[in-house]
Amino acid sequence: MGLIKKDLLGLQDLTKEEIELILETAQSMTEVLNRSIKKVPTLRGKLVVNLFYEPSTRTKSSFGLAAKRLSADGMNLSIKQSSVVKGESLVDTAKTLRALGADGVVIRHGVPGAAKLLAETVEIPVLNAGDGMHEHPTQALLDLYTIQKKREEIADKKVAIIGDIKHSRVARSNIWGLNKLGAEVRLVGPTTLMPANIEQMGAKVYTSLEEGIKDVDVIYLLRIQQERQDKGFFPTIKEYTRFYGLRKEALKLATKDALIMHPGPINRGIEISRELAYSNQSVIEDQVSNGVAIRMALLYLLIEGGLEDE
Amino acid sequence: MGLIKKDLLGLQDLTKEEIELILETAQSMTEVLNRSIKKVPTLRGKLVVNLFYEPSTRTKSSFGLAAKRLSADGMNLSIKQSSVVKGESLVDTAKTLRALGADGVVIRHGVPGAAKLLAETVEIPVLNAGDGMHEHPTQALLDLYTIQKKREEIADKKVAIIGDIKHSRVARSNIWGLNKLGAEVRLVGPTTLMPANIEQMGAKVYTSLEEGIKDVDVIYLLRIQQERQDKGFFPTIKEYTRFYGLRKEALKLATKDALIMHPGPINRGIEISRELAYSNQSVIEDQVSNGVAIRMALLYLLIEGGLEDE
Amino acid sequence: MGLIKKDLLGLQDLTKEEIELILETAQSMTEVLNRSIKKVPTLRGKLVVNLFYEPSTRTKSSFGLAAKRLSADGMNLSIKQSSVVKGESLVDTAKTLRALGADGVVIRHGVPGAAKLLAETVEIPVLNAGDGMHEHPTQALLDLYTIQKKREEIADKKVAIIGDIKHSRVARSNIWGLNKLGAEVRLVGPTTLMPANIEQMGAKVYTSLEEGIKDVDVIYLLRIQQERQDKGFFPTIKEYTRFYGLRKEALKLATKDALIMHPGPINRGIEISRELAYSNQSVIEDQVSNGVAIRMALLYLLIEGGLEDE
Repeated sequence: MGLIKKDLLGLQDLTKEEIELILETAQSMTEVLNRSIKKVPTLRGKLVVNLFYEPSTRTKSSFGLAAKRLSADGMNLSIKQSSVVKGESLVDTAKTLRALGADGVVIRHGVPGAAKLLAETVEIPVLNAGDGMHEHPTQALLDLYTIQKKREEIADKKVAIIGDIKHSRVARSNIWGLNKLGAEVRLVGPTTLMPANIEQMGAKVYTSLEEGIKDVDVIYLLRIQQERQDKGFFPTIKEYTRFYGLRKEALKLATKDALIMHPGPINRGIEISRELAYSNQSVIEDQVSNGVAIRMALLYLLIEGGLEDE
Repeated sequence: MGLIKKDLLGLQDLTKEEIELILETAQSMTEVLNRSIKKVPTLRGKLVVNLFYEPSTRTKSSFGLAAKRLSADGMNLSIKQSSVVKGESLVDTAKTLRALGADGVVIRHGVPGAAKLLAETVEIPVLNAGDGMHEHPTQALLDLYTIQKKREEIADKKVAIIGDIKHSRVARSNIWGLNKLGAEVRLVGPTTLMPANIEQMGAKVYTSLEEGIKDVDVIYLLRIQQERQDKGFFPTIKEYTRFYGLRKEALKLATKDALIMHPGPINRGIEISRELAYSNQSVIEDQVSNGVAIRMALLYLLIEGGLEDE
Repeated sequence: MGLIKKDLLGLQDLTKEEIELILETAQSMTEVLNRSIKKVPTLRGKLVVNLFYEPSTRTKSSFGLAAKRLSADGMNLSIKQSSVVKGESLVDTAKTLRALGADGVVIRHGVPGAAKLLAETVEIPVLNAGDGMHEHPTQALLDLYTIQKKREEIADKKVAIIGDIKHSRVARSNIWGLNKLGAEVRLVGPTTLMPANIEQMGAKVYTSLEEGIKDVDVIYLLRIQQERQDKGFFPTIKEYTRFYGLRKEALKLATKDALIMHPGPINRGIEISRELAYSNQSVIEDQVSNGVAIRMALLYLLIEGGLEDE
C-alpha cells in the first residue's frame, strides 16, 4: 500500500497524512476492543518481539496486549543495557531477530537514535517505544487520538504541556505531532526545565502556570521524576508543586471542560492535586485504553499494511 | 445467573451453596483436563491479569495455566510492594486494569484486605490469591475439592490441620470452608503457633500430635517457614520436627487410609518423614492437579457465569 | 511409532538413524517456517514447561518460539539453583509437572546428569537444554542440520572445532553427533583447554590453528567465556585471540567456501576478526533459524510421535 513508512521512529518523521491514517486505523481497533470477543486473527502466526533495554511495565504491557488482541505471537527479550549504544551488539541482535523470523520489533532503549540504528539494520518494521530523551511516538499518537476522540478536531486547539520539557521524550513527540495537526502548543515550566532551542519547534514558552494555562483546551501534565530530587534538582519537588502543580483555581483559567491528560503514572499531590486527579475532566484512563488501540493500529499498518520505503 | 458473588475474596464470605457450585464446576473442568486436547474456547478474547505483589511460582503458574486452558489471554503485572497498602496506588492500578479492558484480576498482596480494597474499586471480578495472613481461598477450595473427590463427602469427616496455624492464611481459609461443609476441624501445634481467638472459628485445639491425629480422616500439614528460624522462632525447627513431624507411628493413630495433604512445597524430613512424603496415602500431587481445575472453575464462574452482587 | 526414545538427553545416546529422523523432521518444520502463516496446530492444548535453573535468553526463547509455532501452551518455571543437584527437589518438581498436566519439559541445569535424573522420574518427555559441562544436544542437532542443509552430506566432511573444548557441552555434543554421521572431527586449541581422554571420543587434537584448519569444510568456533579471564585463565584472552582467533589468512587454509559456525553470541575481535564475523561464509544466522526448526521437530517427535522406550 505504501501509505506508511517501514518503521515508526518518531513523530518528527511522520507526515500529517500518515498521522491521520494511524488515528483512523486506531478507530477501527477501538471498535474491536468494544466487542465481546476483543480479538481478531489479523496477525496470526506473526511474531512481534519486545526488545526492552530499559525497564517498563506500562508500555511493554500495552504493546504485548495489542499483539495478543491481533492474535500475534509475542516474545520478550529483556536485555541489560550497557552505558553506550553498542552498535555491534545491536546489529547482532537484529540479525538474531531476523533469523528467528520476527515480523516486527518493539524497542525501548536509553540512547537517542537506538531505534533508528536498529531500523537501518533489519528489514522488518521497528517500533520505537522510547529512545532516551529523543522521542516516544506511540505515547504521542495515543495522546493525539485521545484529544481527537474527545474534541473531534485537533486543529486550532490550544494545548499546554506542563513540567520538565527538557528531559521529556513524551513532550518532544507531542510537540511534533500537535504542530503537524495544527494545534497551538504552549510549554509551561521553569526556565531550568526548558530545552535550549525550543522556539524552533514552534512552541511558545510560559514560565507562569496561570498565563500558560489561560484559555487552553488541553492541559497535559508531565510526570516529575522523583529520583531527580536527590541530585540537587532545581526547583525542588516542593517548589515545583507550589508553582506548577495543577489545582482547582488554576484549572478555572482554562476553557470550561478542558481535558486533563497525563502519560502516567501520576504523582498525586505533586503534578496535580488529589481532588483533581480523577475529576470528570481527566481523560487519563482513556489514554490507557487508547494506547492499546494505537499500538494495534501500528502493528497492523507496519506488519500487514505495506512496506514501501520513502 | 447470580449464583455466585462478583469476587472471590475468602471462604468466610462464601455460602455452603456457593462452595458446592464451585466444586461441581471444578468437576467439569477436570473432565476437560482429562481429554487429549486439554483446552476449551470458553474465555477466548478475555483478559485475565495476574497482579502479584508478593513473589509466587506455584499459585501464579496454576492461575496462568487455568487461563490458558480456557483460551483466555493472560498478562502478568509483577509489582514491588511497599510496606503499607497504598490505597491510592491500588486505586490507580485498578483504573489501569479497567482501561486495559481486563475481564478479571488475580491479586496476591502481603496486606490483609488488599483484595477486598481492589474489589471495591473495580467492576470486574477480583480473585484473591493470598492477602497477608488473612485468606488464601483458592488453596482451600482445591483442598476441599481434593477431599471430596477422594471421600465423596466432606460432612462429618475429621480433619487435623498441623503446624503454624497462627501465621497461615491457608489454615484460616480451610477452617472456614471445612466448617461450612460440616467437617470436624482440629488444629494441632504448640500454643505459640495458635491464634488468639481460634475457638470462635469452631475448631478444637490440640497441643499433642498423637491426640490431635487420633481417628482423623485427613491429615493436613502446613509448611514450616524455614526463614523464621533466624528470628528466634520457638519452637525451633528441630523441636517442631520432634514433636509435630509426621512419622509412621503417629500415622497409625489416624483412620486407615487417612489422606495426607500439604499445600507445598514440602520440607521433607521436617513436616513429614522422608518415607511418608510420597506414600500411597499422600494426595499432594492431586492437590496440584485439582488446583488448576478449581481455578478454571472460578475464572469461568466469575467472568462468564453471571455477576449479580450480593 | 517407536522411532525415537522417550527423552532427548544427549547425542551420545542417539543412534545414527534417530539423528537422521530428527534432521528430516526439521526439514518439514523449516517448510512451515517459510510459509506466510508460520504456525501449525499440531500441539494444540499440549503444555510444554521450560524449567531453567541457569539463566538463558537464546535457548529459552528458541524453545518458547518452537512451542508457539506448534500451537502448544508454554509455561516458564525459572528456578534459582542450589550448588548441588538436590535429587529430592528435582523429584518434587517432576511430580508437580506431572500434576500440572505437562506434556513435555525442557530443562537446563548446571549439573551434568540433571536432565537424566528428571527423565527417570517423569513419564513425559524430557529435553535437555544443557546440563553442566555434559551435553547440549539441541545445539549440536541444529549445527548438524545447518551443515547438512548447506553441504547435503555430513559424511566425510572435515570439521574443526576451535576453542575451549574442555569446558564446552556444545563441543561434546557435536563430537558425538559428527562422529555418528561419519564426519572427521578435529579439535583445535591450547592443551590447557583440551579434556583428558579426548582421543577416546574419536577426534584428533591440534594445538596449531593453521594445521587444524587445513582443508576443513567447516570451522566451528566456540565462545570464549570472558568471565574466566579474572580467574587467572591461561591463555589470557589476548593470547587466545593471537593464536586461535580466526582471521583472513588462516581462513584461506580451509577449503574454499568453508562454513564458519558459532553457537553465539560471538565476541567479535576475539574468536573471529570483525571483518569475518558476518562474511558470506558465516552461517551463524542460519544456525539461529535452524534452531527453531530443530526444536519444533523434537517437540513434535517426542510429544506426538510415539513414546516407546529403548
